[in-house]
Amino acid sequence: MLKIGYLGPEGTFTQQAAQRYTRNEQEADLVGLPNIRETLMAVQRGELDLAVIPFENSLEGSVNIVLDILAWEVDLMILDELVLRISQTLMVSPGANWKELAEIYTHPQSAGQCRLFLETHLPQAKLYLTSSNAEGANQARRKGKTAGAIGPLEAAEIFGLETVLQDIQDKDNNFTRFVVVGKDTNHIPAAHNKTSIVFSTEHKPGSLACILDIFNLWDINMTKIESRPSRGQLGRYIFFIDIDGHYTDPDVRDALTMVQRKTNFYKFLGSYPMAETEQNL
Amino acid sequence: MLKIGYLGPEGTFTQQAAQRYTRNEQEADLVGLPNIRETLMAVQRGELDLAVIPFENSLEGSVNIVLDILAWEVDLMILDELVLRISQTLMVSPGANWKELAEIYTHPQSAGQCRLFLETHLPQAKLYLTSSNAEGANQARRKGKTAGAIGPLEAAEIFGLETVLQDIQDKDNNFTRFVVVGKDTNHIPAAHNKTSIVFSTEHKPGSLACILDIFNLWDINMTKIESRPSRGQLGRYIFFIDIDGHYTDPDVRDALTMVQRKTNFYKFLGSYPMAETEQNL
Repeated sequence: MLKIGYLGPEGTFTQQAAQRYTRNEQEADLVGLPNIRETLMAVQRGELDLAVIPFENSLEGSVNIVLDILAWEVDLMILDELVLRISQTLMVSPGANWKELAEIYTHPQSAGQCRLFLETHLPQAKLYLTSSNAEGANQARRKGKTAGAIGPLEAAEIFGLETVLQDIQDKDNNFTRFVVVGKDTNHIPAAHNKTSIVFSTEHKPGSLACILDIFNLWDINMTKIESRPSRGQLGRYIFFIDIDGHYTDPDVRDALTMVQRKTNFYKFLGSYPMAETEQNL
Repeated sequence: MLKIGYLGPEGTFTQQAAQRYTRNEQEADLVGLPNIRETLMAVQRGELDLAVIPFENSLEGSVNIVLDILAWEVDLMILDELVLRISQTLMVSPGANWKELAEIYTHPQSAGQCRLFLETHLPQAKLYLTSSNAEGANQARRKGKTAGAIGPLEAAEIFGLETVLQDIQDKDNNFTRFVVVGKDTNHIPAAHNKTSIVFSTEHKPGSLACILDIFNLWDINMTKIESRPSRGQLGRYIFFIDIDGHYTDPDVRDALTMVQRKTNFYKFLGSYPMAETEQNL
């Protein structure tokens, strides 16, 4: 039986993504881990076969710690991706009046997705950022009627909170992209594929433009570019790029060979089936 | 007298940056604001002349909320920048044993800069992320001997905490770039200048490469590129780019004119003197 870790505990959006993912899989044992690093490290050490982790949100952007760990600390591949619509729910202890909340507990990503809501409707409440939305709900329950939490509807049920308002994110168009990572290197092409890489270029003018021109030259569509500090010097970056196509496609293979030649750090992060919702964008 | 806001309260790294900035200025009245949005909005409404806010850290990357607000919510210019070396200090209530801390209060950026330290030395401590490091120190003081805080040395003094360990960030090379924003549009060129813009391109292959090629064509060095979600659809982005040079330089002016022609959203964010430390990199 496959052992699949997710960013836990129970009651997180990532648990929902993991459950969705395993619907298409053979039997699987789902394990909630306390944070993203431990989840990824458990796969790296072979204690888990796969892990499901949040990667990017349409309002809040990339989950930086995932990018940093994939680039520097582990040798794992992205094997699949899922896109889920995220609905944020405000929850309170039974009987509490949400307009009088003094404290809000939630994950930074959820807080970022509900910034305007919090500033407009709960300006008096202090915001406490927690390691997961489930932990936020847990804290709110412990603190009592002055504390609320924001997160998935399911967390309210698990922690015995009342849901007050649903869909409180600042924009309806709130989607999170989750990725499934593992050590498997047997990437069989699907109908529509995506490939992820990370690299750094020489610190000279035009070096990033040169890389993007390579993809143009081979008519490869770039679907994402994201920079992160190289952790060396302020002003030096590494770049995460997603492109359409599978590394076994001759054009993708040739373009990536050229990219490797023109970069001083290069890491292949996987070829995997494109999530269905993204094909429909 | 100039009224200059900063991300407060007293005891934050941004206060240090604001104090450093006003050393070169005429008399100024420094005002600590509770969060980044309120700081920027106060300048937008004309209640402050200028604001000093954190922009980018060499370990943790850009401060996303600053990018988002500058792009979408205000009409402000970057007028200056400062780069400060950031030293993170672990502080506790007088007499507390730091190895037995159950809770750590700190700002997300500081937590990110000390991730390995926390995982190695304080794996048992729960992490609570606060709106500022000063607020973290304040919380730690209120919670008593089981709680610690991470932040600038000055915060320990202000909140009556004892400093336990200094320089606990994961890498010594920890610098934060602060920017000074205001409504002034009179940007007199200095000896070395930088220009910041934000834009989005058409959603078609090669459109970002086209923009970078423009800078190449005019021999303009790009010092930073950062993407943020366009907040519309997952997979659509806006791009923040910094280039060397001042908008009154003929080459910069001509290149930016061409960039405007090739983008469907474009906003000039200012030309300003390059920080001294960056010239020495």
